[in-house]
Amino acid sequence: MTPSSPMIGVGLIGAGRIGTSHAQILAERVPGAQLTMVADTRTDAAGSLADRFGADAVADPLQLIKDNSVEAVVIAASAEAHADLIVACAAAGKPIFCEKPASLTLEESARSLAAVEAAGVILQVGFNRRFARDFRATHDAIVRGAIGMPQLLRSLTRDPGLANPGAVPPWTIFLQTLIHDFDALLWLNPEADPVEVYATADALVAPDFKASGLLDTAIVVITFDNGARAVAEASFSAAYGYDVRAEVFGSAGMVTAGNGARTAMMLRDATGLHQETARGDVELMGDAYAAEFVEFVAAIQQARQPYVTGRDARRALAVALACIESVRTHAPIPIDRSAATLAR
Amino acid sequence: MTPSSPMIGVGLIGAGRIGTSHAQILAERVPGAQLTMVADTRTDAAGSLADRFGADAVADPLQLIKDNSVEAVVIAASAEAHADLIVACAAAGKPIFCEKPASLTLEESARSLAAVEAAGVILQVGFNRRFARDFRATHDAIVRGAIGMPQLLRSLTRDPGLANPGAVPPWTIFLQTLIHDFDALLWLNPEADPVEVYATADALVAPDFKASGLLDTAIVVITFDNGARAVAEASFSAAYGYDVRAEVFGSAGMVTAGNGARTAMMLRDATGLHQETARGDVELMGDAYAAEFVEFVAAIQQARQPYVTGRDARRALAVALACIESVRTHAPIPIDRSAATLAR
Amino acid sequence: MTPSSPMIGVGLIGAGRIGTSHAQILAERVPGAQLTMVADTRTDAAGSLADRFGADAVADPLQLIKDNSVEAVVIAASAEAHADLIVACAAAGKPIFCEKPASLTLEESARSLAAVEAAGVILQVGFNRRFARDFRATHDAIVRGAIGMPQLLRSLTRDPGLANPGAVPPWTIFLQTLIHDFDALLWLNPEADPVEVYATADALVAPDFKASGLLDTAIVVITFDNGARAVAEASFSAAYGYDVRAEVFGSAGMVTAGNGARTAMMLRDATGLHQETARGDVELMGDAYAAEFVEFVAAIQQARQPYVTGRDARRALAVALACIESVRTHAPIPIDRSAATLAR
Amino acid sequence: MTPSSPMIGVGLIGAGRIGTSHAQILAERVPGAQLTMVADTRTDAAGSLADRFGADAVADPLQLIKDNSVEAVVIAASAEAHADLIVACAAAGKPIFCEKPASLTLEESARSLAAVEAAGVILQVGFNRRFARDFRATHDAIVRGAIGMPQLLRSLTRDPGLANPGAVPPWTIFLQTLIHDFDALLWLNPEADPVEVYATADALVAPDFKASGLLDTAIVVITFDNGARAVAEASFSAAYGYDVRAEVFGSAGMVTAGNGARTAMMLRDATGLHQETARGDVELMGDAYAAEFVEFVAAIQQARQPYVTGRDARRALAVALACIESVRTHAPIPIDRSAATLAR
Repeated sequence: MTPSSPMIGVGLIGAGRIGTSHAQILAERVPGAQLTMVADTRTDAAGSLADRFGADAVADPLQLIKDNSVEAVVIAASAEAHADLIVACAAAGKPIFCEKPASLTLEESARSLAAVEAAGVILQVGFNRRFARDFRATHDAIVRGAIGMPQLLRSLTRDPGLANPGAVPPWTIFLQTLIHDFDALLWLNPEADPVEVYATADALVAPDFKASGLLDTAIVVITFDNGARAVAEASFSAAYGYDVRAEVFGSAGMVTAGNGARTAMMLRDATGLHQETARGDVELMGDAYAAEFVEFVAAIQQARQPYVTGRDARRALAVALACIESVRTHAPIPIDRSAATLAR
Repeated sequence: MTPSSPMIGVGLIGAGRIGTSHAQILAERVPGAQLTMVADTRTDAAGSLADRFGADAVADPLQLIKDNSVEAVVIAASAEAHADLIVACAAAGKPIFCEKPASLTLEESARSLAAVEAAGVILQVGFNRRFARDFRATHDAIVRGAIGMPQLLRSLTRDPGLANPGAVPPWTIFLQTLIHDFDALLWLNPEADPVEVYATADALVAPDFKASGLLDTAIVVITFDNGARAVAEASFSAAYGYDVRAEVFGSAGMVTAGNGARTAMMLRDATGLHQETARGDVELMGDAYAAEFVEFVAAIQQARQPYVTGRDARRALAVALACIESVRTHAPIPIDRSAATLAR
Repeated sequence: MTPSSPMIGVGLIGAGRIGTSHAQILAERVPGAQLTMVADTRTDAAGSLADRFGADAVADPLQLIKDNSVEAVVIAASAEAHADLIVACAAAGKPIFCEKPASLTLEESARSLAAVEAAGVILQVGFNRRFARDFRATHDAIVRGAIGMPQLLRSLTRDPGLANPGAVPPWTIFLQTLIHDFDALLWLNPEADPVEVYATADALVAPDFKASGLLDTAIVVITFDNGARAVAEASFSAAYGYDVRAEVFGSAGMVTAGNGARTAMMLRDATGLHQETARGDVELMGDAYAAEFVEFVAAIQQARQPYVTGRDARRALAVALACIESVRTHAPIPIDRSAATLAR
Repeated sequence: MTPSSPMIGVGLIGAGRIGTSHAQILAERVPGAQLTMVADTRTDAAGSLADRFGADAVADPLQLIKDNSVEAVVIAASAEAHADLIVACAAAGKPIFCEKPASLTLEESARSLAAVEAAGVILQVGFNRRFARDFRATHDAIVRGAIGMPQLLRSLTRDPGLANPGAVPPWTIFLQTLIHDFDALLWLNPEADPVEVYATADALVAPDFKASGLLDTAIVVITFDNGARAVAEASFSAAYGYDVRAEVFGSAGMVTAGNGARTAMMLRDATGLHQETARGDVELMGDAYAAEFVEFVAAIQQARQPYVTGRDARRALAVALACIESVRTHAPIPIDRSAATLAR
C-alpha cells in the first residue's frame, strides 16, 4: 500500500475536552493527518488519549514540539499558555493550529505573531464558524454583493450548559465565547473595521456566582467605520442545545446562517411539529471542525496561508478587550485601531 | 333584515395612508363597525375617502368627535395632534382607538391618560403586533412558562422603503417605528420593567440627510429589572419587504415570532428555492390590523378594557425618550421609572 | 348610519357542524352578508343557530328559498339533497353557494347545472382550497409558467379524527374528502384534462368497520392527457391535526402549498424545536372559508361568475366516480371524458 | 508514524462517474480505507483515476479481485456485471461493497447471495439513503414508535438532468433509480412486507425517445401486508437539482426526511427569500456516501454484517421487477413473496 500523499504527523498539546474531540476528528475525518503524539502535564489523560489513537504521550509540550514525528502542532491547551506555545512552535519551524483565543493580551498577540511571521510558519486559529457550510455560503454571498453594503449584523453563541460556574475565569464570555462572534462579524463585514463597542453583561444563569466575577449572559454592540452596527450575544445556558447563528442585513437584502437543527428530520404528532436540536458543539459544528483541519492539512501541503490566521485572531481580541473595558466603565469604548484594522 | 347586534358608527380622523388603510380594513374585515364620518383638514382627501365607504366628510376633527353618528373614534392623524384629540374624545365620552404614538412627551401622555381615566372611556393604542397570531402565541407561551425566565430578547422592524427622507421628523425611528418594538419587548417580558437603555443610530440609507437630522438605522439595548437584556433594531429600508420579528430566550428555552413570508407557497426552480416576502405593512400585518379593530369593537360592546391601553403606550414612550437622550449623550441612560413601571 | 353598499341577506340550509361554522364566519368575517334565515328539519338546531345571529328559523328549506329576506342561499345540507336544492334555488332565481359535493352522480350534476344555466344564477361550490393564500399563489405561479409544464402532482387531505366510523356513508373518502383534492389537482394542471384513475383504499384507522364498507385511507393515481400523473391521498385520522397540502413538479421547477402550522411561532426547549399544528379545518382553512364567502358576495354584487363553479364540481365528481369503480374492479379506470373535459 | 489501526486496501471496479466519486470520497473522507487498485476495461480511465490517488490500474476486474493489495472490493461497474463480480469476490473471500442494483434478476440475486453466504463474506449494497442523517433519524423515530403504525408512505427521487436519453437502458427508472425508493420504503415500514404494486410511467422529459423505450417519469403504488400504502415517484429531470425525500404517516403522527437545501443559508432580497438547492447527488448525499463507506470499513474491522445487505437488495429488486410487469400489463401486479419477505 502506497498512500497517495504522505501523511502529516500531528502533535496535540492538551488532552482535555476539546483536545480529545480534536484527536477523534483528526482520526476519523481527516485522512491526510496522523496523530503521533499527545502532550499534557496530566500524564494519565495524555496517555489514555494517545493510546486510543496509537500515538505516544509526553508531559512536556516543548518535548512534543521538538519531536521528529511531529510535523505540525495542534494547540488545545489552556488559553494562558497559547502565546508561548505558538512562539515555541515557530522557533521549531512547525505549522501551528491554535484553538481560540490565540492570546489574551495585545502584547502576547504581537509577540507571537512576530515570531510566526519571522519563522514563516503557518498559524491557523480555531474559528470554526468560517468552515461551517452555511456560514461560508453567507460570507460568500456578502462578498459577491448579494445584500449590498452590510448595515446591521448579528451573531450569537448559546452554550448548552454551565457545568461548573465557579471554575469559569473572569471575562471568559468575551475572551473565549464571544470571540467566535467577533471574528464572525468582522469576517461578514469584509470591507470595514470595528471602531467602538458597548457591552453589557450579567450572571443570570448562575446569579450566586456573580459576586465572584461570573458573567454568563452578554450583549455587545459594535460600530464599524462604514457605519454598520453589529450585535453579538452570548449565554452559557441554552436549554435547547448549542445555538450558533448569524444574520447580516444590508442595503440590498439579508442573509442568515445557522438553524440549530440536529438533522432535517421533522416529526408531527399529537403535540405538534418537532425537530431535534443539536445538543452540543461537536454535534452542531462537527463538520466545521473536520473542515478546519482539512484546511490546515491543505495549507501545509500547498505551503500557503490558511483561510483564517493569527491576524484575524488579533482583530477579534481587540474587540473582546474593548468589551471588558466597556463593562468595567459602563460606557462605549473605542477599539484599538492598530490591532483591529485589517490591511486590505 | 335585522342585524344580530347593532353596528357601531365609527369616525375616522386622518385620511392619509394609514387612515385609508384603516377605513378599508374596517369596511372589509370588521363586521361590527360602520364608518360614518371622516375628518381631515385636507378636505379633498377626506371627501374621497368618505365617498368610497358611504360616509360623510368634515374638515374639523372636533366636529366629527361631537357628531351623533360617531359612536367611537379612530385617530390616525399626525402624532403631534394625538394627545389633544384623545382629550377631546374623552370629553365627549367616546371610545378611542389611537394610532401609535399616543403622545410624544410624558407630559402629554399624563394629561391624556388622566382625561381618559376621568371620563371612563376606552383607549386602545395601535400596537398591532399584539394581535398577530404568532406574536400572541409567543406571548402566551412565555406567560405559561414555556421558556422559563426571559433573559435575552430581540425585536426588530424593517420598513420596505424610505420614500421621502427629507420629510421624516427627527427621532421618528424611536418615537414612531421602534415604539412598536419597545411595546413588544415589554409585553414579552411580562414580569419585568425596563430600567436603562443604550441606543446608537445613524443615517445609512440616506446619508445625505444625516446632517439635517435623519436617523434611519438604529440599535437599542434595554436592561430590565430582572436582569434580562433586550435588543431592538430598526431600518427604514429593507430591500426584501416589511420585516417584523421577535425572539425571546429564557432559562428554559426560546420562542420566536415572525417569518416575513407572504404565503406558505414555496417555489423551486433552476436558481434554487424561493418564497415571496411580504412587501408592506398591510400585507404582513393585515390580519393583525383587522384583529385589533375586532378587539376594539368587542371591548366597546362588552364595556371592558381593550388588550392594549394608554398605559402600555406610556411605558413604550418612556423607553423611546430615553433612547433619544442616549443618542444625544452617547451613553447609557436610565428610564423614567414612574412612567415605565407597570402596576401588577 | 348608511351602509356603503346594501347587505345581502343570506339563507343557510343546514345547521350541522359545517353550517354552524359557515354562519359564524359569515357573521364575523364577511361584512357584505347578513344571515337572515336558517333552515333545518332539526328545528331545535335551526332555532338555536338562528337565534345566535339574529336570524329566523324554518324547518323547510323550500320555504327559506322563497323567503323575501333571502337574497342568496348557502347550502350546507346533506350531500344527497344538494342537487334538488340547487334546482329549487335556480327556479327561485337566487344565487347559490353549495358545499361540496354539489351532487353525487353525473346525472344529478347534469340536471342541476342545466337548471342553473337556464336560470342564469350564480352557483359557487365550496372548494375552499382555491381561496387559501398559498394555494392561490401556487396556482398563479403555475399559470405564469414558473414551473413549466406540470408532470407530477400531489394533493392530500388528512382529517384530524374519525369520531363515528359507523356513520360514514360508503365512498365518503372519494365523494366528500378527496373531491377537494381532485378539484385542486385539476385546477393546478390548468391546461390538461384527466383521463384515467387507479385507486386503492382500506380501513386502517377503524379496521373493524371495513366489513361494513368503511374506507378511511386511500391513494389515487390520476393520469392526464398531457402525460402528467397526480397522486391524491387521504386519511380520516391524522394525529397531528388537519393537514392539506399540494405539490406540483414541472419541467422547470416545483411549487408547494400547505404547511399545517397553526402560527409561525416556534418554540425550542429541552426536547427540541416545536411548532403548533392546526387542529381542525376551521383553524387551518378559516381564512379560506372567509375568502370564499367574500368571493360569493363579490360575484353577486358584480353580477359575474364566481372563481369556482358547478362545472368544476362536475369534473371533480367524474374523477371520484372513476375511483369508486377502480376500487371495485381493482384496475385502472377511464374517466368520463364529457364530464371531465373543460371547455377552454 | 504508526497508524492506530491498519488501513484496509480497497480495489475499485469501475472508473466511470460513480466510481470516480467513490474514489474521491474514500480518499478524502474515509480514513480507514486506502485505494490501492482501480480496474476498468477503459484502461485510460482506470489509469488516470488510479494515478490521482496513488493506486495501480488494471483492465481486468478479476485480476483486481485476486490482487494482494486488495483487501476489500468496491463494485461500481455496469449493472449487468454486478452479480458475476459479487460471485468472484466471494470466491476470493473478500468483503464487497456493490453499487445498486446488486443484480438485475431474481435468479442472479439468488446465485450471488448464495455465493456470498457460502463464503461468509460481507456484502454491502449502495443504498446511501440509509446513511443520510435525516433518513436515519426518520427510521429510528419509526422504530421507536413515534408515529405508530405506518399507513401512508412516500419516497421520491428526482435527478437534476438527463444528459443522454438515448443511452438509458429500458426500465432504468425502476431498476436503477426507484430501487433506492423501494429500499427506503421497505426500511421505513419495518414490520411489513410488500405484496402488490401498481406502476405507471412515461417519457415526459424526452418524449422523442419514448418510442425507443425511454421512461423518465414514474409513479408506483405499493401495498404492504399491514395495509399500508406507499407511493414512490421519480423523474429524470428536476430543474432545481437533486431531490430525495421521504414521508411516513402513521396512526400516531408523521415523520419526514429530505429538504434538498445545499446549506442552511437563506438570502432575502428584492425578489423574496432564496435558498440554494443541492445540484447533484454528491452535493446532496455526500455525507451519506462517506458514511456508507465508514460503515463498510467498520463492518470489516468488526467482522459483522453491515447495516444494509444483499437481502435488502433482493427485496427492492422484487418490487422493481413487479413494477416493470405492471407497466407492461397496465394492471396491479403481486410481488414475488419469497424474494420480498424479510425473515424477522
